Amino acid sequence: MNHVDLLSRLAQPEDSKIVLLVLDGVGDLRTADQPETALEAAGLPNLDDLAERSALGRVVPVTHGVTPGSGPGHLALFGYDPTAPENDIGRGALEALGVGVELGPGDVVARGNFATLDGDGNVTDRRAGRISTEENRRLADKLNAALADAGTGDLRVSIHSGEGHRFVLLIESSAKGDLSPEIEDTDPQETGVEPLPLSAREPGAESTVERLKPVLDTLSGALEDEPQANGFLLRGFETLPKIPTMDELYHLKLGCFAGYPLYRGVAKLCGMELATDDKEVEDLFERVRERWDELDFFFIHVKEADKAGEDGDLTAKVRILERVDEAIPRLLEMLDPERDVLAITGDHSTPAPMKLHSWHPVPLLVHGPYCFVDDEDHFNEITAARGHLGTFPSKELMGLLLGNAGRLHKFGA
Amino acid sequence: MNHVDLLSRLAQPEDSKIVLLVLDGVGDLRTADQPETALEAAGLPNLDDLAERSALGRVVPVTHGVTPGSGPGHLALFGYDPTAPENDIGRGALEALGVGVELGPGDVVARGNFATLDGDGNVTDRRAGRISTEENRRLADKLNAALADAGTGDLRVSIHSGEGHRFVLLIESSAKGDLSPEIEDTDPQETGVEPLPLSAREPGAESTVERLKPVLDTLSGALEDEPQANGFLLRGFETLPKIPTMDELYHLKLGCFAGYPLYRGVAKLCGMELATDDKEVEDLFERVRERWDELDFFFIHVKEADKAGEDGDLTAKVRILERVDEAIPRLLEMLDPERDVLAITGDHSTPAPMKLHSWHPVPLLVHGPYCFVDDEDHFNEITAARGHLGTFPSKELMGLLLGNAGRLHKFGA
Repeated sequence: MNHVDLLSRLAQPEDSKIVLLVLDGVGDLRTADQPETALEAAGLPNLDDLAERSALGRVVPVTHGVTPGSGPGHLALFGYDPTAPENDIGRGALEALGVGVELGPGDVVARGNFATLDGDGNVTDRRAGRISTEENRRLADKLNAALADAGTGDLRVSIHSGEGHRFVLLIESSAKGDLSPEIEDTDPQETGVEPLPLSAREPGAESTVERLKPVLDTLSGALEDEPQANGFLLRGFETLPKIPTMDELYHLKLGCFAGYPLYRGVAKLCGMELATDDKEVEDLFERVRERWDELDFFFIHVKEADKAGEDGDLTAKVRILERVDEAIPRLLEMLDPERDVLAITGDHSTPAPMKLHSWHPVPLLVHGPYCFVDDEDHFNEITAARGHLGTFPSKELMGLLLGNAGRLHKFGA
Repeated sequence: MNHVDLLSRLAQPEDSKIVLLVLDGVGDLRTADQPETALEAAGLPNLDDLAERSALGRVVPVTHGVTPGSGPGHLALFGYDPTAPENDIGRGALEALGVGVELGPGDVVARGNFATLDGDGNVTDRRAGRISTEENRRLADKLNAALADAGTGDLRVSIHSGEGHRFVLLIESSAKGDLSPEIEDTDPQETGVEPLPLSAREPGAESTVERLKPVLDTLSGALEDEPQANGFLLRGFETLPKIPTMDELYHLKLGCFAGYPLYRGVAKLCGMELATDDKEVEDLFERVRERWDELDFFFIHVKEADKAGEDGDLTAKVRILERVDEAIPRLLEMLDPERDVLAITGDHSTPAPMKLHSWHPVPLLVHGPYCFVDDEDHFNEITAARGHLGTFPSKELMGLLLGNAGRLHKFGA
């Protein structure tokens, strides 16, 4: 039986809480030049104390050697197989999530470029001279105003600024719910030719194309008088996969405590309420406390460890880990020791020496009444590799947490 | 390739013996209140000595966080995927196995209640006043006698007492082998109405229903004069899955050395001969010795560790482990050190602090000429987590044992 189906079939309501604290990119490396990982180099008295009363282990985000993006990394932590085709979130959808577009299942997005066209309507610059993000925002406001004025038929369409010349076109699924993403790019991928006309890749998309054409005409008209960005190109029409949500699957009321758009987007896709847009660990823990009685599952996302890793800045990575350590007692005092479960891990490693996401297994700490108190009393890559939980795929963590929280029936008699 | 298909394709006959000693529920927990597991707390000089000459590891019965019942736990140890739909044994079949009904593939069972009917034939008590198990046995004898007198056509039907008002109706597959379990419940699940007539859920079950109806009339007639249990209700008609048996798959002559019905039932389903109904470890080892030359595979089941765990009785759990330890030299002296393989593990953990089956990985010891003698010289949860065999799904143990016993061809050239 499929792993998620098995867990879902066994899931039962319970009063226990589950806290999943994701330290983005927490895993690090020992190399010749960096003899200690960030977790080893940091002073973490509270996490050490917690480790002494907890079980350690490691999660492998995708499989050995495969480096995940943040989308698959989080989907796996939430219990989904990140490589299953039905959980494949395309780049367009992820970029949309990344700029804060709160996509729902069935919505269609496309990646857009502002572009420069000549008097004949041929593309002269596919990136409109790489306009500034600020200029991009002005244009997006102008376009959204034009759409509001002209109307968009039975569609709901909006433009969302990205960095530089990039934007996202969002077409929200209406009550009719019959949008198709099977639409050809209008980006010709070369200059000296006109943008391609909007066309359906298969018959099922023809109605979407027909309804979208007048909307694109409105957008073109609104840009006509622009000196630089007087046109636009679209590519990568995609829809969000309709995945079963974690509330449907596991009888949980879930809250996302994350300030950055991409993580909020993935959490929303999985059925979580967006409970705050705070970003600092201290604020996130305070928001959790405020919602403690109402929710069952708390996904808390601390971004800075990943950022420091990508900057190759071990000192900054150590500093954010020490801040988490200082704050952690506030989180611990919320837990009912006879019932509740806390997991601390990452969606992937971002080793400072690599300045990139990596494939390395990520340290995991699980604390709960039946977690198995193992022999380790520090929380780092070395102790985690020796810990009682062993090393297993990230997608299996959700089952472990549900089991520890008494939220799974016995399988079979 | 499917795991079982792979092993089966590679399996070859060999003179080696495999002994699988299952200490039911052996795995335990360290918690704040219980700093040592049962295996740690017990004095196990013989097992420690064996561990020093063996390889340790752990098995995960189903997946992380999922607690198995005894059926799935044993199926996995016998090499079957416990979550595969074709290996799903329904509750009715397991209850039947649990009361000692030795079900075969294709047999149909139903769960029965003795019930009280009024003068109009309406149910007044679905549990016949919760009659005693002793009374139940008297009624079952009476019904089986009535069936013997009246005959059961071309079916073989029998009644098997459970606890209190519960029984199992067994319909054995005849040479015709065309029984269908797709039969509706006769239990109306309420009082004040008649039991429902026997009816087929699909056309393929109509012949089974027609052949069963006169048999049920005989049963009704035999109960007519009973003051309390003058009727019966049936629900949950099920058939045992026809799974490929271990003798067919692996060229093994298999013996089950288990005294409790459920484990005997699972073993029979998997193709094992029921070699004894002894329950005490010393007796079980003696029975193994008596059959040593005739069989290849010895499944030995020691129940008491699970029972002690479910009672939350660490002392009793320690005591049974120490009894196993005392007896183990008798088992070891049967083994040919150049050829034979012994595995000691459990079908799941039953930690005393939880008083329940649990999801925790189960310690495993494998002893054989090529097991890899690792650094561990105790047998417990901590050493097992460090052991050379690592942590892997229970369903993969069978392949490891066959390989160690020289019973698997090389795969590919």
